[in-house]
Amino acid sequence: MKPLSPNEAEDRIFSLRGKVPSVNCALEAAAGKILRQDITADHDLPPFDRVMMDGLAVRLSGSRRFLVQGVAAAGMPQIVLPSAEDAAVEVMTGAVLPDGADAVLPCEWYDFHDGVAVLQPGKAAKAGEFIHRQGSDHRAGDALLRSGIRLGPVEIGIAAACGCAEIQVAAPLRIAVLGTGDELVSVGEVPKAGQIRRSNTHALAAALQLAGHGPTATGCLRDDPEDLRQGLAAVLSENDLVVLTGGVSKGRWDLVPEILVSLGAVSILHGIAQRPGKPMGVWQMPGGQVVFGLPGNPVSALVCLHRYVLPALSHWSSESSPMRPRRILRGEFTKPTGLTLFLPIREMPDGTVAPAPVANSGDFSGLAGSDGFVEVDESFAEGAAAPYFPWFAK
Amino acid sequence: MKPLSPNEAEDRIFSLRGKVPSVNCALEAAAGKILRQDITADHDLPPFDRVMMDGLAVRLSGSRRFLVQGVAAAGMPQIVLPSAEDAAVEVMTGAVLPDGADAVLPCEWYDFHDGVAVLQPGKAAKAGEFIHRQGSDHRAGDALLRSGIRLGPVEIGIAAACGCAEIQVAAPLRIAVLGTGDELVSVGEVPKAGQIRRSNTHALAAALQLAGHGPTATGCLRDDPEDLRQGLAAVLSENDLVVLTGGVSKGRWDLVPEILVSLGAVSILHGIAQRPGKPMGVWQMPGGQVVFGLPGNPVSALVCLHRYVLPALSHWSSESSPMRPRRILRGEFTKPTGLTLFLPIREMPDGTVAPAPVANSGDFSGLAGSDGFVEVDESFAEGAAAPYFPWFAK
Repeated sequence: MKPLSPNEAEDRIFSLRGKVPSVNCALEAAAGKILRQDITADHDLPPFDRVMMDGLAVRLSGSRRFLVQGVAAAGMPQIVLPSAEDAAVEVMTGAVLPDGADAVLPCEWYDFHDGVAVLQPGKAAKAGEFIHRQGSDHRAGDALLRSGIRLGPVEIGIAAACGCAEIQVAAPLRIAVLGTGDELVSVGEVPKAGQIRRSNTHALAAALQLAGHGPTATGCLRDDPEDLRQGLAAVLSENDLVVLTGGVSKGRWDLVPEILVSLGAVSILHGIAQRPGKPMGVWQMPGGQVVFGLPGNPVSALVCLHRYVLPALSHWSSESSPMRPRRILRGEFTKPTGLTLFLPIREMPDGTVAPAPVANSGDFSGLAGSDGFVEVDESFAEGAAAPYFPWFAK
Repeated sequence: MKPLSPNEAEDRIFSLRGKVPSVNCALEAAAGKILRQDITADHDLPPFDRVMMDGLAVRLSGSRRFLVQGVAAAGMPQIVLPSAEDAAVEVMTGAVLPDGADAVLPCEWYDFHDGVAVLQPGKAAKAGEFIHRQGSDHRAGDALLRSGIRLGPVEIGIAAACGCAEIQVAAPLRIAVLGTGDELVSVGEVPKAGQIRRSNTHALAAALQLAGHGPTATGCLRDDPEDLRQGLAAVLSENDLVVLTGGVSKGRWDLVPEILVSLGAVSILHGIAQRPGKPMGVWQMPGGQVVFGLPGNPVSALVCLHRYVLPALSHWSSESSPMRPRRILRGEFTKPTGLTLFLPIREMPDGTVAPAPVANSGDFSGLAGSDGFVEVDESFAEGAAAPYFPWFAK
């Protein structure tokens, strides 16, 4: 059977489960989350004819000399401009334009003494100038934000202006990241002969956290059928998503697939036409939980997390068609025949990217100094922009 | 006096204070922070001759038929390959290469029955193949990570492999974000005539948080000299950095500058040759605290935060020369003479950016759908890449 292409694998993964539910979230805690409601203007924007400069509100009468007869500060209800042709009200940026005024004169335009303002030569009031008219940006009821966007500072500001002290966002999934392997010891230990420290779970949990998912449970399971079975069952009972690294190939030492099947898992895919990460597998449990079996190789595991797990989390959160960034790739590299290549790259000052290949990949040190990877498939042509997956958003 | 250029303003701001101290941080909490120590390999990488495939470890003897006489699993100390020419040890990915072995044969290369493995035609053992040699990536003592980098998943993985259960990172600064203005009411309130809801503080706090700084205290001060004075004094006593929006221009309604001076502040700059954000000011208090006075206009405030406050925080954290991203700008726009333009843009699928100008800017709604802004100064030439400031990293 021909192994799946990355896009075929992605389609199969995306369809594995429905959208996560929505939850209420305080606006202060919503940055970075996916909005799950529309946000509409609850009043006109601006809500009133708004003064845009400190100065004088006047009538268009041809007068160049004004008697200042009041003050309109920001936050005050609207006042009335007295009816005399040369009446003026001193106004502050953000104030309501006094009723009857046609224009605002900025304070740099006139000389002011003893309650009388005289326009400087060459300056003149123009109808509507320095007035931000009520509703000129948006009318009450206009949709300002659509469900599905990721909430950045702009969107948080809009939600605040619309009175959303709480908003509906995508609920977090409960995620566990597990290493497997008898050679793994914890970070605090000194490895004995044949052992290495666990690093995959730390790196993957960091990537999930930096992408806005977390905290994640992390742990490690031994290469022992009974340990694996019990450990997996316990973790599956408490999580929606389990990310495993190691033990997922089809070799005689790879115990994970058969144990998952013994726990009732359905194999969704096993093997993708890609380098690195070819042995990756995905299973679904009877309770709906999704298990990503990533290779134990650190580079492969991190690449597969960014190529499949993070996009799936966006998709299941109903993030509206996030545009996958692309970068123009400049420099030499070797593409394996028949496999999609995930090529580690470095960002260049001009916005292009250059290959930063790793010789071996027994650990993460070969990726130091790289910024992420690009996806190079059969359709890639020199000079084209390739899909770009940064290790994290900086 | 000619107002400062953005780069001159930045230089002046950066030199305002020394580096923040370093603090110890658990590795699990370090993602996104700035590393403040070098991290060196505490052992060779790999720490031993590491088997890269499940298969057989053999001697180079010309033999094509092997007697399998043992198993080397991952995590086991090194074993010895028996001395017979046709001796083999079954090995697992990640295991220590048995002493005396010259090569690894992947399990797909041979047929195995009753303890005897026979190489398939066309396959042959090659010296060193599928062996990741001890120290071939790095030697014990090699510096793997340098102080000053931002810790992403790769760096967290490297730190884990080197046994850093805790690492030194840049200490957070205590930051407060304050709105000023009598027209401002809280998000939960329904604005009365002449009032609007506070949105700047929410947007700025979200931007700080999404850039890895936070939590920040937020609040609002009235346009009243005594309120402002008491409020500012209280906030300054508890924070290293205060970001104000509104009340910072040089007009008669702008009370902040003179109150800061009455509290002992030194004016560092007031006015920058830029649009938007021209009235921006920076002050330093006798206790060393830095006060950024951003304009009250929401777009100006957000632009100035990204152009000055976030880069200053990186600089003071000793982040090693973060490369400022640049983007090729395509599309029409008008550049004001003599002022640097901060132009809101939208990211295009091909990696370039297009102008997304806002008509008015009394609120954040005009920025909906924009991804950030580029800096267009006198030196900008069409087709060139301009410095890019995303609203947040996605």
